[in-house]
Amino acid sequence: MTAHLLTIGDEILIGQITDTNSAWMSRQLNLNGIVVKGKSSVGDTRQAIIDGVELAMANAPIVLITGGLGPTKDDITKTTLCEMFDSPLVFHQEVYDRIDGYFKKIGRGTPPESIRHQAMLPDKALILPNKVGTASGMWFEREGKVVVSLPGVPFEMEYLMTHEVLPLLKAKFVARPIVHRTLQTAGEGESNIAKRLEAFEEALPAHIKLAYLPTLGQVRLRLTGVWPGDLTEGAEARLQEELDALKVQLWALIPDLVYGEENDSLQEIVGQILRRQGKQFGTAESCTGGYVAHMITLVPGSSDYFPGSVVSYSYEMKTKLLGVKPETLEHFGAVSEETVREMAEGARKTLGVDVSLAISGIAGPGGGTPDKPVGTVWMAVSDANRTIATKIIFGRDRSKNIQLTGVYALNMVRKFLLEV
Amino acid sequence: MTAHLLTIGDEILIGQITDTNSAWMSRQLNLNGIVVKGKSSVGDTRQAIIDGVELAMANAPIVLITGGLGPTKDDITKTTLCEMFDSPLVFHQEVYDRIDGYFKKIGRGTPPESIRHQAMLPDKALILPNKVGTASGMWFEREGKVVVSLPGVPFEMEYLMTHEVLPLLKAKFVARPIVHRTLQTAGEGESNIAKRLEAFEEALPAHIKLAYLPTLGQVRLRLTGVWPGDLTEGAEARLQEELDALKVQLWALIPDLVYGEENDSLQEIVGQILRRQGKQFGTAESCTGGYVAHMITLVPGSSDYFPGSVVSYSYEMKTKLLGVKPETLEHFGAVSEETVREMAEGARKTLGVDVSLAISGIAGPGGGTPDKPVGTVWMAVSDANRTIATKIIFGRDRSKNIQLTGVYALNMVRKFLLEV
Repeated sequence: MTAHLLTIGDEILIGQITDTNSAWMSRQLNLNGIVVKGKSSVGDTRQAIIDGVELAMANAPIVLITGGLGPTKDDITKTTLCEMFDSPLVFHQEVYDRIDGYFKKIGRGTPPESIRHQAMLPDKALILPNKVGTASGMWFEREGKVVVSLPGVPFEMEYLMTHEVLPLLKAKFVARPIVHRTLQTAGEGESNIAKRLEAFEEALPAHIKLAYLPTLGQVRLRLTGVWPGDLTEGAEARLQEELDALKVQLWALIPDLVYGEENDSLQEIVGQILRRQGKQFGTAESCTGGYVAHMITLVPGSSDYFPGSVVSYSYEMKTKLLGVKPETLEHFGAVSEETVREMAEGARKTLGVDVSLAISGIAGPGGGTPDKPVGTVWMAVSDANRTIATKIIFGRDRSKNIQLTGVYALNMVRKFLLEV
Repeated sequence: MTAHLLTIGDEILIGQITDTNSAWMSRQLNLNGIVVKGKSSVGDTRQAIIDGVELAMANAPIVLITGGLGPTKDDITKTTLCEMFDSPLVFHQEVYDRIDGYFKKIGRGTPPESIRHQAMLPDKALILPNKVGTASGMWFEREGKVVVSLPGVPFEMEYLMTHEVLPLLKAKFVARPIVHRTLQTAGEGESNIAKRLEAFEEALPAHIKLAYLPTLGQVRLRLTGVWPGDLTEGAEARLQEELDALKVQLWALIPDLVYGEENDSLQEIVGQILRRQGKQFGTAESCTGGYVAHMITLVPGSSDYFPGSVVSYSYEMKTKLLGVKPETLEHFGAVSEETVREMAEGARKTLGVDVSLAISGIAGPGGGTPDKPVGTVWMAVSDANRTIATKIIFGRDRSKNIQLTGVYALNMVRKFLLEV
């Protein structure tokens, strides 16, 4: 089963916004067994919309449209679709009541007259209720093909896809259960992981696939199973059991790399371990300049285990706030095992925490030397019993070096806490 | 003059990567007077590529293709284009020599045999030399239309667009000079800025337009002028003078909002002012958790004026490291004018800096109270002579609140330093 994604809006064509919707939609459709065959974008004119929809319908039986549903006059997607599907606009009282209720809920009082227009919807379309905004989704059918129009605001689109479109598409087009299981890894590249999983991958039955999904410093491993036989009672449950067992096998093959599963993030996992162990954690950051503290504190409730951090960009901050000895800095430099160990040990005292992380490196683009090139980063983790330190040499891009250091450092803290 | 952008690659269709190339290309084309009429994405199959290119050529006289040029066997863009333009592959020695030189330059020695394939290029295409990678650009022409194929790696695409494609397109298709001037603003929304610029906008001559380009907490204002008359000697210089004068006028209308021009960022501007004034700066962050320090230290060389930061997430860090009085926290709470002032004044002493910024707020989603709702943030800036504080109430999204606070706080520091 295939789909075509169509984006409507001049703001996409002039590059004012980057289209992140279609990548999200593609992933969700894939997870539900629907393959995206093509994508296209057209501007806010009647003819461009008509041509775009016709081409999309020629390409795939499912067409998902985003954008062009705002209350302003230049958004003509709705009227053009009405014309194409010969379906005049009628006033939908239940939609108006929902918008009215939504306005009151977010404290904006009675909706202005322009919003009334959002309750004018095509008579022949199935209306998909939008509980997080004013633009309804519209589901049209013609000659066995489905055309769905959704608002372009990402969280409204995601709400309608999750609660309305995907369940309807699954019911109509997808016969077989599909089950996914995900493991999150850090600290090793895609090709090295693939080598360790070669035998596992070869032994997978034909109806189960393993995908490698890399991001900066991390790789997600996703097992996808499609029910192979006829659809029988309990098929989905059996497929789930099969995938669960394979996930356990997979995890056991690379226990040193897996930090979590499904939608876990590294900073959430580190937070969970700290919470469970009843430990307080803090950071002493030089080249990352507060980035690791920022990652940690993106997690709601992180104040339970994270009292704070010292960003020590200068020699003086390292000596004054973290107790690094001036002679250590003088003999070994700020980017050295000796300094980063003293920073970590000092941070435990200064921040009054059980476990600390210290980072010192050369983020670039300047500041490198022959024996300490740009990208050289020392990290240390310390508790009352031990301090460990490691050096990694990243690349030349300042921003990437900071982000990669964040991932590696948090993973180092995770392993330290779990003593693995 | 119009263009169509075509992206080739299964990784786009499955949503593994978000297409950021086409937004960048759209902006660059717009800046050069070329309007993007449509965009599309197809998968890595011969037929999908042929259909995609034919549709794109039917839509616009300029077709820019990205993706599908790697040395691996599934990248069939090149052979398909050769077939479409009846142009067999031939070995280009000068391209091979360039790749060979590139490999040696980045320390990878002699290129492997698979890379030799990258020097096999269509005989009838104009070859666009790629100095930052191995995949050359290819410029085909047919019936007055231009089809250009570029690698999908963003920095390679950007290199070829900037150094090869845009100059060639301008020479071939764009007769009139186009000039842009940009001002960067922070602290006010798009519609309020537009109100203050109403008379200015109305008085603009027909050949000059003003665009509002908003991002989180900031709005870029871009003046675009297209030479209106016949092309004469010195036309571009005269248009530049006209735009420069308008930019000065525009700046004078909203001096409180403009922080910089062209590609300036707020953290760079703050850094430049600090450097000019010979001042040291530091932050004391609660709810932003190190994010402002991270923004500041993304700027290369920031260690010259930024010795560090204290992230004080807990009451204890606020009292111990910043000298906030326990009774202040007890009486007024951590999110209060009194606390944030003491944090700022304490930070100056702890960090030994001339100017400090302190932030304390409720990033959410939890922690709000009736008189301090989620999104409430207090900020203070302090030097030896004065301390100023302000409260802003942002929204409900934790991550957005942190980012918006960063923008507002840096702008507050900028104004404090300039005493405006």
